[in-house]
Amino acid sequence: MRQSVNDISLGQRLYERLEAFARHSEDGPDTLTRVFLSPEHRAAAEELLGWMRDAGMTAQIDAIGNVVGRYEGLTPDAPCLMMGSHIDTVRDAGKYDGNMGVLAALGCIEELNRNGERFPYAIELVAFGDEEGVRFPVTLSGSRAVAGTFDQTTLSLRDKEGTTLRQALTAFGCNPDRVAEVARRREQVLAFVELHIEQGPVLEDAGLPVGAVTAINGASRLSVEVRGTANHAGTVPMHLRRDALAAAAEMMLAVEARGGAEPDLVATVGRVDVLPGAVNVIPGLVRFTMDVRSPSDAARRRAVADIDRRIGEIAEARGVDISITQTHEAAACRCDPALIEAIGKSIARAGVEVRQLPSGAGHDAMAFSRLCPVGMIFVRCEKGISHNPAEAITVADADVSMRVLLDFIRHFDAGRLTRPNEERPAA
Amino acid sequence: MRQSVNDISLGQRLYERLEAFARHSEDGPDTLTRVFLSPEHRAAAEELLGWMRDAGMTAQIDAIGNVVGRYEGLTPDAPCLMMGSHIDTVRDAGKYDGNMGVLAALGCIEELNRNGERFPYAIELVAFGDEEGVRFPVTLSGSRAVAGTFDQTTLSLRDKEGTTLRQALTAFGCNPDRVAEVARRREQVLAFVELHIEQGPVLEDAGLPVGAVTAINGASRLSVEVRGTANHAGTVPMHLRRDALAAAAEMMLAVEARGGAEPDLVATVGRVDVLPGAVNVIPGLVRFTMDVRSPSDAARRRAVADIDRRIGEIAEARGVDISITQTHEAAACRCDPALIEAIGKSIARAGVEVRQLPSGAGHDAMAFSRLCPVGMIFVRCEKGISHNPAEAITVADADVSMRVLLDFIRHFDAGRLTRPNEERPAA
Repeated sequence: MRQSVNDISLGQRLYERLEAFARHSEDGPDTLTRVFLSPEHRAAAEELLGWMRDAGMTAQIDAIGNVVGRYEGLTPDAPCLMMGSHIDTVRDAGKYDGNMGVLAALGCIEELNRNGERFPYAIELVAFGDEEGVRFPVTLSGSRAVAGTFDQTTLSLRDKEGTTLRQALTAFGCNPDRVAEVARRREQVLAFVELHIEQGPVLEDAGLPVGAVTAINGASRLSVEVRGTANHAGTVPMHLRRDALAAAAEMMLAVEARGGAEPDLVATVGRVDVLPGAVNVIPGLVRFTMDVRSPSDAARRRAVADIDRRIGEIAEARGVDISITQTHEAAACRCDPALIEAIGKSIARAGVEVRQLPSGAGHDAMAFSRLCPVGMIFVRCEKGISHNPAEAITVADADVSMRVLLDFIRHFDAGRLTRPNEERPAA
Repeated sequence: MRQSVNDISLGQRLYERLEAFARHSEDGPDTLTRVFLSPEHRAAAEELLGWMRDAGMTAQIDAIGNVVGRYEGLTPDAPCLMMGSHIDTVRDAGKYDGNMGVLAALGCIEELNRNGERFPYAIELVAFGDEEGVRFPVTLSGSRAVAGTFDQTTLSLRDKEGTTLRQALTAFGCNPDRVAEVARRREQVLAFVELHIEQGPVLEDAGLPVGAVTAINGASRLSVEVRGTANHAGTVPMHLRRDALAAAAEMMLAVEARGGAEPDLVATVGRVDVLPGAVNVIPGLVRFTMDVRSPSDAARRRAVADIDRRIGEIAEARGVDISITQTHEAAACRCDPALIEAIGKSIARAGVEVRQLPSGAGHDAMAFSRLCPVGMIFVRCEKGISHNPAEAITVADADVSMRVLLDFIRHFDAGRLTRPNEERPAA
């Protein structure tokens, strides 16, 4: 017998379903690992297909392994509000990263179906299969395929057993020759909205269960090499040294200071190699990495330029040589202003103070930025921990999430959104 | 035919002899490696024995492998001015480290013998065989044996082939049961004076060929562990971080600043380990080493205490945890004030500005600090490089060294020295 919404809160139902859904794991009941196109992925997809159909949706697995359900609107073939997230996980994962966004949207559609609510727009729910990029050296395959930016050459990529993505899709029951047909046209998708755990500590620190995401941050990664002179730690007076590590330490503090100089910017030195690296030798060579992220590409580039200049000044003052190499750059994906506002209003109607925050981690929503307006709702997670079995949410926060997402769907107004080809306010 | 001093300058002769002496190497003519009790060590010792006898000295190899020569004074059995350094080398060494001190003193005695100069004191020249500690896990065996502080238990130590020090001594032709007899009584040795290349850049920076050493620096080594919280470099705002590396960078700059806050003190961070050490992860754990040296033990201890306190303050302000462990401590060996002054006067009489400087590296002279007053003369070496084939001196500097050392011997006055048991001025 189907459980009634009156028996249990929407949040409790979501929480329990996430617990149950985590059994689709290659590791057994105590840990969760569910990689793209694995038997566990297939089992999770099948269960989800059943739930979607029970909720009044048409549903199937598409050519790239996404589980796609459609809840029709008031008229057939209406353009859709697309929602979703991913059901693949990292190894030894938590239960909420990705899965919560899928099952929360499912819970909302079940509730709408139960009440017979239909809208001028359809609602589609997509459970992507490859957000984490664990199995193949590629990521966002599912969301890129839907957004029309899937790279066909990645079908030849191999996992560590030597299986190609093409072979794995075929074994999963998909037809890799039809991946291009997964792509949606712009007029079919009004917006893409993803609910996801924050994976950071901002909401917990603010004491808030949910927040409206402003952007998925762009990132610059740089590698800095500092060349001084290695020498005897006992025989060279301080004023005659060209200590590569002391110089690098000053540069690292400059990175930290610039990161903290404006809101939403972060700058991190994560890796340091010191040569020769002996207790009694002044370091002659230091290499360190730098990761700078911001919701604003302009702000990020300004910060990188400022840090570059400051590193140059420090090197000049200390008489050491430097080289700085950019190793990675990704543009920010800005959320649609009207979607941010609409999500904020739904949060306010749930009785929660509205907090806007950027996403420091990547998400499937990024893949949609050239197809349609994008919005995201973040949910507080304990200590900001993710990609770890210690990942945790509360039933109360799951309940707020459900109420906000339902309210958002009910008030969704595509007329106010900015299409990707239209002009947007400057970052 | 014996070469006359009139044919060639003392410095030129020393320089050429150092070149020739470097052929006693296990590596062939292009590199120099001469480890304790090796065939090359034996060949070098034999050649040196011959030179000593030619210079009017009695000479033999003692029970620990030292080559010991004695140039008698005006009366038999007079107490001696002992001079010397070591003839063992590191692997792939330079030609001057150790060998220059031995052959410079030899050149002086040759000159005195040629002129028939005798003094109220004898002159002894000792070429120690184990200053670098390359073969066995012990160092200063030769000088400690002469100074009476040789540890008999080290005879059981093994080299990497499994040969014990005792076996190696026997194979070298020494009687390890008689090492204790190598020790001198205090009344036999008026002072120990060693000439050595600086192994640092101070004299070169000052434009001076030689300098008077004030002390062989004492050293403290510490290991610092900084524990913050590892987290996602994209999702954690700057103000919510406990970045172990940023904290460590601030600590490293504090180490450098304290090292530079007073003359003759040096403080170095040589090794750093950062965990987890990924470009996109805020470091959660950093370990670094600290090496602090000074000619004054009191100044060194004050500096370590100040650095410890500053590290504590930084940790407190940043909310990271620290632990600091001392891994090594060695007291300074102060040179005798009257010897420093006498060496300075000889430098001045050679027409050179007198520069006093501490030694940051260890030397055989350290071993004598409880037996007799100790003095050292430093010689400029190119770029301060040592323990490397690029080690270099000039003929002109060798000539100044010879004139200073000869002048020092001729003016030596044991009456003004402070015996180790007597009170010394506070450091």
